[in-house]
Amino acid sequence: MSTSVEAPRWAAVLQGWQSGPGPAYQRLAEQFKAAIQHGRLTAGARLPAERTLARMLGISRSTVVAAYDNLADGGWLERRQGSGTRVAPRAPRRPRVLTLRTPASGTGDDLDFTIAVPWLDGEQRAELRRASARAFDDSSYHPLGLPELREAVAATYVEQGLATRPEQILITTGAQQGIALTVAALVRPGDTCVLETPTFFGAIDACRAAQARLVGVEVHTQPPGVAAAQLTEVFERQAPRWSFLTPTFQNPTGTLMPTATRRRIAALINQSQVPLVEDDTLADLSFGVATPPTIASLAAPSAPVISVGSLSKLYWAGLRVGWLRLPEALLAKVAQTKTLADFGSALPSQRIALQLVSDLPRLRERRRELALPGRDLLVELLRAQLPQWQFGVPEGGQFLWVELPTANATGYTQVAARHGVRVFPGAAMAVGGSQDCWLRLPFTMPMALLPEAVSRMASAWAEFSQREGDTRLS
Amino acid sequence: MSTSVEAPRWAAVLQGWQSGPGPAYQRLAEQFKAAIQHGRLTAGARLPAERTLARMLGISRSTVVAAYDNLADGGWLERRQGSGTRVAPRAPRRPRVLTLRTPASGTGDDLDFTIAVPWLDGEQRAELRRASARAFDDSSYHPLGLPELREAVAATYVEQGLATRPEQILITTGAQQGIALTVAALVRPGDTCVLETPTFFGAIDACRAAQARLVGVEVHTQPPGVAAAQLTEVFERQAPRWSFLTPTFQNPTGTLMPTATRRRIAALINQSQVPLVEDDTLADLSFGVATPPTIASLAAPSAPVISVGSLSKLYWAGLRVGWLRLPEALLAKVAQTKTLADFGSALPSQRIALQLVSDLPRLRERRRELALPGRDLLVELLRAQLPQWQFGVPEGGQFLWVELPTANATGYTQVAARHGVRVFPGAAMAVGGSQDCWLRLPFTMPMALLPEAVSRMASAWAEFSQREGDTRLS
Repeated sequence: MSTSVEAPRWAAVLQGWQSGPGPAYQRLAEQFKAAIQHGRLTAGARLPAERTLARMLGISRSTVVAAYDNLADGGWLERRQGSGTRVAPRAPRRPRVLTLRTPASGTGDDLDFTIAVPWLDGEQRAELRRASARAFDDSSYHPLGLPELREAVAATYVEQGLATRPEQILITTGAQQGIALTVAALVRPGDTCVLETPTFFGAIDACRAAQARLVGVEVHTQPPGVAAAQLTEVFERQAPRWSFLTPTFQNPTGTLMPTATRRRIAALINQSQVPLVEDDTLADLSFGVATPPTIASLAAPSAPVISVGSLSKLYWAGLRVGWLRLPEALLAKVAQTKTLADFGSALPSQRIALQLVSDLPRLRERRRELALPGRDLLVELLRAQLPQWQFGVPEGGQFLWVELPTANATGYTQVAARHGVRVFPGAAMAVGGSQDCWLRLPFTMPMALLPEAVSRMASAWAEFSQREGDTRLS
Repeated sequence: MSTSVEAPRWAAVLQGWQSGPGPAYQRLAEQFKAAIQHGRLTAGARLPAERTLARMLGISRSTVVAAYDNLADGGWLERRQGSGTRVAPRAPRRPRVLTLRTPASGTGDDLDFTIAVPWLDGEQRAELRRASARAFDDSSYHPLGLPELREAVAATYVEQGLATRPEQILITTGAQQGIALTVAALVRPGDTCVLETPTFFGAIDACRAAQARLVGVEVHTQPPGVAAAQLTEVFERQAPRWSFLTPTFQNPTGTLMPTATRRRIAALINQSQVPLVEDDTLADLSFGVATPPTIASLAAPSAPVISVGSLSKLYWAGLRVGWLRLPEALLAKVAQTKTLADFGSALPSQRIALQLVSDLPRLRERRRELALPGRDLLVELLRAQLPQWQFGVPEGGQFLWVELPTANATGYTQVAARHGVRVFPGAAMAVGGSQDCWLRLPFTMPMALLPEAVSRMASAWAEFSQREGDTRLS
């Protein structure tokens, strides 16, 4: 079977349609209505053929027919001879953005594998309480961050051998704000943004919201990461205004870009002066392998490489403390964008972060102790129960990048959701089209939940394989 | 004398030039260079005549001449016969934005009257520590805010008689983020934004950054607030896409818009469907007077009125917790913008806010107990030491709005800065031009600092009056 590259988009638009009361066709229709109302589907957008959607969602065609009839009766859809089924022209036009769904928005018992967050244990909570002793010491606004924290973060770069002044550090509300601020400050509608594909969906969404033109450069497993030659060609031909790479334990593929590639990319940035946002947020999560030097440290000191850091992956996402390290040339522009955005991030979190940043080696060690058994257990469970699934074992980061023996991984995630486990298809993280045969599986969940999660994945896989087989026969 | 309406802009561009080492002309030249590098001055911008700038800054003309010579020698300026002195064309073009300066960026001993922040006392810090007991209870992302806090904030509106579902509440990193998000979601380059003049500079800056066209509607003292008739005319003629009002204890004028005006404006929004951002952040700061109903509560439930709330003025700005209450029609769009901006605000602050929001009547009473003596002391000190200054005594809020017997209040603030007290000229908060004869004086500073601050203002006023007299004679 050949599932369209559109499939991951429909998965994103319809995710969660199964939950809630009422018959299946009605729930599906309601999900379409919500997508139209919230702008995820715009006027004129073409809907999948009934048979195609039925296959993608792993449901009967008659359910889709009933849902489409319901929508057409309500004036939500238009059906025209020869041009298929389209959204009726009353929804406002707006950029399409994939909205982040929180675990809380799922049904109560679902196991959520869509987002990787470190869970806090009791010891860590106690540590946070101790770290917050001085959390309320300050009455001022600090648009660019608490001065002490900017100093402490600058010092971490200096320790890595990258000369950094505190003025170059901008504290943000998580790495996402940092990435979004660089886009807001540097990208205008129609500008070209270059990203790895697949990549972090927050970066994709920020570019889409800025109405940029997105160009994806494929991430390879061997040699790992993007190819410098391909990136060079894209830079030369497409004149991008912004680029985004995660060289270390790339999200979602887990690849570790070799030093030689980093050197060539550093030279490319030196020469092209295209701003590169280097996402280092997963670099703290090595399971022992030494990570190569950052591109920022290999590039000229004046090169436009913006480093992104965060405590969300190392410690706790709820703190919402991230940062940017900016070169002189980009400093003022991004700092101004941050000031306008919110007059600065929350101070209690920054005070706590100040304690944590001064203790990074211990925190890294501890995160490794927590994450490594999770990775190993997930690997073991998958090998035992889902031997058809293929994956490499990453040296760090948060994810297994799993290849399924199907070109409809999106369809599988819909079945999995019905079995109570939410997981993203890799194709949802692609820039442009992609083969729909990948899943991104975080191993950051509490270990006690992993056996149940994999058992649900396996029963969903059994059902999905069965249906796929039936579809092939029909 | 007639100071140009440009004066407040130069005050903003050059603010703080006096601090630092070296002779005055050099410090002034450096400040211009920084303004050019940081984009506050763009290529081709015309500089004030030497005599004019000398008067504005309260310094000798020869200092300005030496600074301009220095800048011209360095290639920063161009002087052309007939077109005056302009910034040389090498700075990149970008929107002009007034950067928020933090007290920490001033010289150490300055008393900062430019920003109004409640100071925390020991009892409040202890209270915050108690409120943070459950600060680390959650491992999820909550892009739109902690569900319990959204519920608690919704309940505060319901108590005011404004039916509100928790889904209508979006938690933001302070009110500034809330205002900036509405602009980002609703305003496109070239759109018209309507604001009171003078008004909160964060709102002005957000509109400028969006490359909007700004239209100011004047705030009157009697009857207080903007005139509904004038607002109606602007709405009819200029077809705005966004509007911003602070009906209660307006920043900076302190005016309290009467119910009749609010009713007419509510009807205007019902009829025009132009989104109105109603900033309620100062409504908690009444000194006893009952505040009229909000425009949101007088408008139709479906009217596009977005309410802005915050704990920054009531309790502590460092918490960075604010919120929006959004009508159905605008909910999805602004929520999506928030998600993209940072995946949600910091959780420890939201947990603390949850405790505070459930205790609003006590907090309001307490803020009044803290603020009222400050207002009274500032009034008393000014009447005794600066009897030439005119002001009304506001019934709430944070500011005295003071009229000086000069049309160069900006020049006065420069002199005051040299005397160790930083204060904003009202004209810096104007949309478009304004008479430069106003100062905005917050009374939120610890009371112990007020006598010294007013004494510095008085000696600065003596020096300024003297110089102004000299200038008139020369």
